[in-house]
Amino acid sequence: MNYRMIKNILGWILIFEAAFMALPLLTAAIYKESVFFSFLISIGICLLIGFLLVCRRPKDRTLYSREGFVIVALSWITLSMFGALPFCISGEIPNYIDALFETVSGFTTTGSSIVPAVEELSHAALIWRSFTNWIGGMGVLVFVMAFVPLSGGNNLHIMKAESPGPSVSKLVPKVKTTALILYLIYIALTAIQTILLVLGEMNLFEALCAAFSTAGTGGFGIKNDSFNSFSSYSQIVVTVFLILFSINFASYYLILMRKFKDAFTSEVRCFLGIVLAAIVVITLNTFGIFDSLGEAIKHVSFTVASLISTAGFATVDFDQWPELSKTCLVLLMFIGACAGSTGGGLKVSRIIISIKSIAKELCLMVHPKQVKKVIIDKRPVEHEVVRATNVYMVCYVIVFTVSLLLVSIENHNFVTNFTAVTATINNIGPGLDLVGPTQNFAFFNPFTKIVLILDMLVGRLELFPMLVLFFPGTGKK
Amino acid sequence: MNYRMIKNILGWILIFEAAFMALPLLTAAIYKESVFFSFLISIGICLLIGFLLVCRRPKDRTLYSREGFVIVALSWITLSMFGALPFCISGEIPNYIDALFETVSGFTTTGSSIVPAVEELSHAALIWRSFTNWIGGMGVLVFVMAFVPLSGGNNLHIMKAESPGPSVSKLVPKVKTTALILYLIYIALTAIQTILLVLGEMNLFEALCAAFSTAGTGGFGIKNDSFNSFSSYSQIVVTVFLILFSINFASYYLILMRKFKDAFTSEVRCFLGIVLAAIVVITLNTFGIFDSLGEAIKHVSFTVASLISTAGFATVDFDQWPELSKTCLVLLMFIGACAGSTGGGLKVSRIIISIKSIAKELCLMVHPKQVKKVIIDKRPVEHEVVRATNVYMVCYVIVFTVSLLLVSIENHNFVTNFTAVTATINNIGPGLDLVGPTQNFAFFNPFTKIVLILDMLVGRLELFPMLVLFFPGTGKK
Repeated sequence: MNYRMIKNILGWILIFEAAFMALPLLTAAIYKESVFFSFLISIGICLLIGFLLVCRRPKDRTLYSREGFVIVALSWITLSMFGALPFCISGEIPNYIDALFETVSGFTTTGSSIVPAVEELSHAALIWRSFTNWIGGMGVLVFVMAFVPLSGGNNLHIMKAESPGPSVSKLVPKVKTTALILYLIYIALTAIQTILLVLGEMNLFEALCAAFSTAGTGGFGIKNDSFNSFSSYSQIVVTVFLILFSINFASYYLILMRKFKDAFTSEVRCFLGIVLAAIVVITLNTFGIFDSLGEAIKHVSFTVASLISTAGFATVDFDQWPELSKTCLVLLMFIGACAGSTGGGLKVSRIIISIKSIAKELCLMVHPKQVKKVIIDKRPVEHEVVRATNVYMVCYVIVFTVSLLLVSIENHNFVTNFTAVTATINNIGPGLDLVGPTQNFAFFNPFTKIVLILDMLVGRLELFPMLVLFFPGTGKK
Repeated sequence: MNYRMIKNILGWILIFEAAFMALPLLTAAIYKESVFFSFLISIGICLLIGFLLVCRRPKDRTLYSREGFVIVALSWITLSMFGALPFCISGEIPNYIDALFETVSGFTTTGSSIVPAVEELSHAALIWRSFTNWIGGMGVLVFVMAFVPLSGGNNLHIMKAESPGPSVSKLVPKVKTTALILYLIYIALTAIQTILLVLGEMNLFEALCAAFSTAGTGGFGIKNDSFNSFSSYSQIVVTVFLILFSINFASYYLILMRKFKDAFTSEVRCFLGIVLAAIVVITLNTFGIFDSLGEAIKHVSFTVASLISTAGFATVDFDQWPELSKTCLVLLMFIGACAGSTGGGLKVSRIIISIKSIAKELCLMVHPKQVKKVIIDKRPVEHEVVRATNVYMVCYVIVFTVSLLLVSIENHNFVTNFTAVTATINNIGPGLDLVGPTQNFAFFNPFTKIVLILDMLVGRLELFPMLVLFFPGTGKK
């Protein structure tokens, strides 16, 4: 294990985190908030430790697969641990476990909150929460890699470990250029959304926060009632952008390259199909609750987009909907967005691969001598990817089950426990019942909170980096 | 597809079913019950249709893999459809869907009931319910194969499709002899249990019913309160035999052959370890509820054995236990018994294979160039088995999810829906809340009952035979 290289990258992560904190620092200065000094102190701590770690340059800059996983896991843990400092220092979230929960929830784009009334937070704290959603959406290491000189060639490992989905395809031959293109698309879409929101009733601060949380599909709100009090125009803009940020960013690159046919992969088509089907089923099921069909479609579309993108905003208390709708929503939480987007969940492409491999298995039973491959978008899927996907699904179920058992020790009801784990491991935000959209996660005890913190990290990093970190064989040669 | 051969075997199934019904017929005669004539008419119908199907002998007696799956699926459906007749004709369960639910629940060894007060049923109906548990436990086709002259060689397909677990090992070179040995072990264990129960306070009728339901790990009771009103002695006997019937029957053969070391496979050790761990955790968690530690251990052991064996008997209302215990119990329902036993669930061996394949995947990430195989009991597991197991798990999750969605249309609460599907797909019996151990399944509407009937069949036949039946490619050459 190349420990020096790991330390070096962690140092860079802290330096970048200090840079990210400039935004809330500026916000505090504009609004003349006392929280300014908390951010200043936090920036100082990050820079100090960061430079200490960076100053000893490693001789060997090679990174192998396992270092990739370990670096990704440790980076996210470091980022969250230091990102929680401003909340603690300012006393806005005095308990460190709570502050850590909030920060992990931010960076992992979960959006579960332990703050009962977000409107009482300072502007700086609010924008830092939303900004962590935005930073976490695309992944920090991909960002660091795009700017920091690392050794060439081996950095695909890191991108593989940090990017959501069963496989990573490079848009262009160079990993660094691929990362830059993806970030430019991300920034452009965020900017467009901010402008559209400002054209509505939002001020720049509100629009920026909303756009950051939407872009990262994080779901941190700046109002106590999430998106209920904003206008229909703003709600519709957010609905559309939630869908846009759930689609593989590679598709946008292909659209820019005018390869329209390639852009609409079977994953994108399938994702849009699921969204449409869910809207139809749930609208039919909840129709009676709303004043008009238009209202019903608006709120259902917002909720479906919010949950399948794994953002977790709310315009209505969907915990009051009929059971079929609620079960559909929980299912959407598990499905999640497209691979290569900022959304969480299992990812549509994994589900496609798994279903196709079941069909292949059935086909083999009926015709044992046939040779069949799993084919997606007219190309055979590598055997390795199919195997890893099915192992991933099984692993996911096991991690989910263990978490559920640990959370149930606190003796809340099954729906609360089940959806609390669902909401955190899929990086959604709210669940049902005690963790429903009008509730928050503050009432859990510290042990449960730590379990949920780990679930958020495991979910965002897609199991393996966190598991590799704790795998007994990792340290050995 | 060899349709003639399929018809022929279905005919034999009906003739055997008529023979099985001789037991309730005899019971009705002994207790002088009017239900006698219902069984007589049902036997007549089975024999008539059975002989009509059998009389045209097929020229070609070859069975391929797909015919194996189709025969297994159709046999179980036929068996249940005709097995429900006595309940309907006698008027004890007047509605046919209800009678079918009860019979499928019997043959699939589920034990979920739509009868609110079983003590009101006739002796003949009670013993027929328990006897369906016993028949379903070992599988009907394996039984038919052991007695009926089929073409040689290809009948391993049927055994593979009907036997629980990821792979079937023949104890002796001939499939027929293997089946006979397994049946002798099954009959011997059932007989021993009956004798032990008669030595307690039970009469022969009660002991036979209890032994049948235990042996098949079915769980149909003959008292309204399941096993609560029987003595501690009887409860302990049942606990022990539930564990015994959850262990791979091949182990008993190996013990008889004095291969003690081979008998205690890693699956058996793991199963016993899970049972012990569950008893310890749940006893610690529920300790305060019971009068003494002895009582606690007795009831918890009974419940753990009852649910991991997927029988579903109850001595206490475990729906009142704390959340951790209930979550543990739901987990046990999913884990299930050993492969090659009469128990349901996912099977311990599948879980071992899946966990080992996850460890292998992690190992490959840390050391990408290593060549590793999944090893169980010092032997490498065939790559095909590992792949099929992981695909099985994913397929199981998908079938579970679809069922949950369909059941939730009726708008009961999430715990009821979730555990109703859990209890039927794993062939347990009771779930939690509205389908808890003191409740029954009568209140569901016919649509939900049909979904749950299919879940029971899908669970008992381990997904693939039922899926192959509805797979578009099955009919084609």
